Amino acid sequence: MTDTPPSARTEVHRKPQRAHYDRTTIEAIIDDALICQVAFNHGGSVHCLPTACWRSGNHLYIHGANNSRMAQVLTSGECSVCIAHLDGLVLARSAFHHSMNFRSVVIYGRFEEVTDPGVKAAEFDVFVDHVSPGRAALVRAPSMVEMAGTRLLRIPLHEAAAKIRTGRVIDAEEDMAIPVWAGIVPLRLRADRLEIDAVCTFTNPPNLPVFIDD
Amino acid sequence: MTDTPPSARTEVHRKPQRAHYDRTTIEAIIDDALICQVAFNHGGSVHCLPTACWRSGNHLYIHGANNSRMAQVLTSGECSVCIAHLDGLVLARSAFHHSMNFRSVVIYGRFEEVTDPGVKAAEFDVFVDHVSPGRAALVRAPSMVEMAGTRLLRIPLHEAAAKIRTGRVIDAEEDMAIPVWAGIVPLRLRADRLEIDAVCTFTNPPNLPVFIDD
Repeated sequence: MTDTPPSARTEVHRKPQRAHYDRTTIEAIIDDALICQVAFNHGGSVHCLPTACWRSGNHLYIHGANNSRMAQVLTSGECSVCIAHLDGLVLARSAFHHSMNFRSVVIYGRFEEVTDPGVKAAEFDVFVDHVSPGRAALVRAPSMVEMAGTRLLRIPLHEAAAKIRTGRVIDAEEDMAIPVWAGIVPLRLRADRLEIDAVCTFTNPPNLPVFIDD
Repeated sequence: MTDTPPSARTEVHRKPQRAHYDRTTIEAIIDDALICQVAFNHGGSVHCLPTACWRSGNHLYIHGANNSRMAQVLTSGECSVCIAHLDGLVLARSAFHHSMNFRSVVIYGRFEEVTDPGVKAAEFDVFVDHVSPGRAALVRAPSMVEMAGTRLLRIPLHEAAAKIRTGRVIDAEEDMAIPVWAGIVPLRLRADRLEIDAVCTFTNPPNLPVFIDD
């Protein structure tokens, strides 16, 4: 556990009291995510694209088709990866003191491609189990052709920072009498009614990640 | 309504059948967002940071404290803004055909600062009403000092693209007999039990945006 940023560019300047640089906090935020945003430079422009992600050990993993631009570009330069969970609306008595509760992580570094078939197979199992715990053992594993057509990329977590806003609304003393509801609207991701495939006869429902309410 | 990308860098190359370039689709996705990710270059690195956002007319707006690095840097160079809504898990019978339903928008361009006090005040009202419809009229409006300490930035929407995956699971014919639940797990953002501020006596609860379930 550390309270100092791992690099200058990782340091949180704005509201540094919300910064966390310890691996436990960073991993917990990543583990609650199904998608991340990846920022990278290509063709003279900065791009920011969403993609599915999961963590395994000391890396964040993403994947893409062999002919995906992002998968091709990411191993050739540095990037920044962002994960942000919106945990609540902070409704204050003044417009100015409104805020949001959130947990975010930003990772800096470079993706590397994982090509070993055994490692790829194991990490894709981790991915499927991240989306639905226990599911990798129930579905057909990737074929050789499917594996060969999919790039697996990973970025190390050693240059990362988390930022968290939690807790209550904070109003100025002189605003406390303003006649309006003030407080927190907590937000959660919830699974709506499952939509089983029309021709599926196996009705045992899938497990959901702990960060999704059912 | 247009089906052609507004620029080369906006064009969706991977699964182009999921691309949408019409303003109606792009605005609808932005209007369901409370946060976006902004990617920009600064100090020799690409950065990707989350921030609150709202749309008003032909622009996406963000704000930040005067001493915020991002607010200072964004008006001096191009950036990319990404919004992504995860709408569902697509659970297939094979690992390979798993997918996610989503709606995303990527905007390219440059932020400009809005300094006119009247326009700033109006746009901050739009922001508060985006977070909780009708609330701007109930809370204390920003003071001159608060307004002066806050930058309001906006980026035009004319160089943007949306990408959407919707609908059912698609499995290979030879996998249809695999004995596993297959289908869609729809995901929604839900408000948990409201947490009224301990000293708040005004119990009329806030309105929530239509894209948040209560």
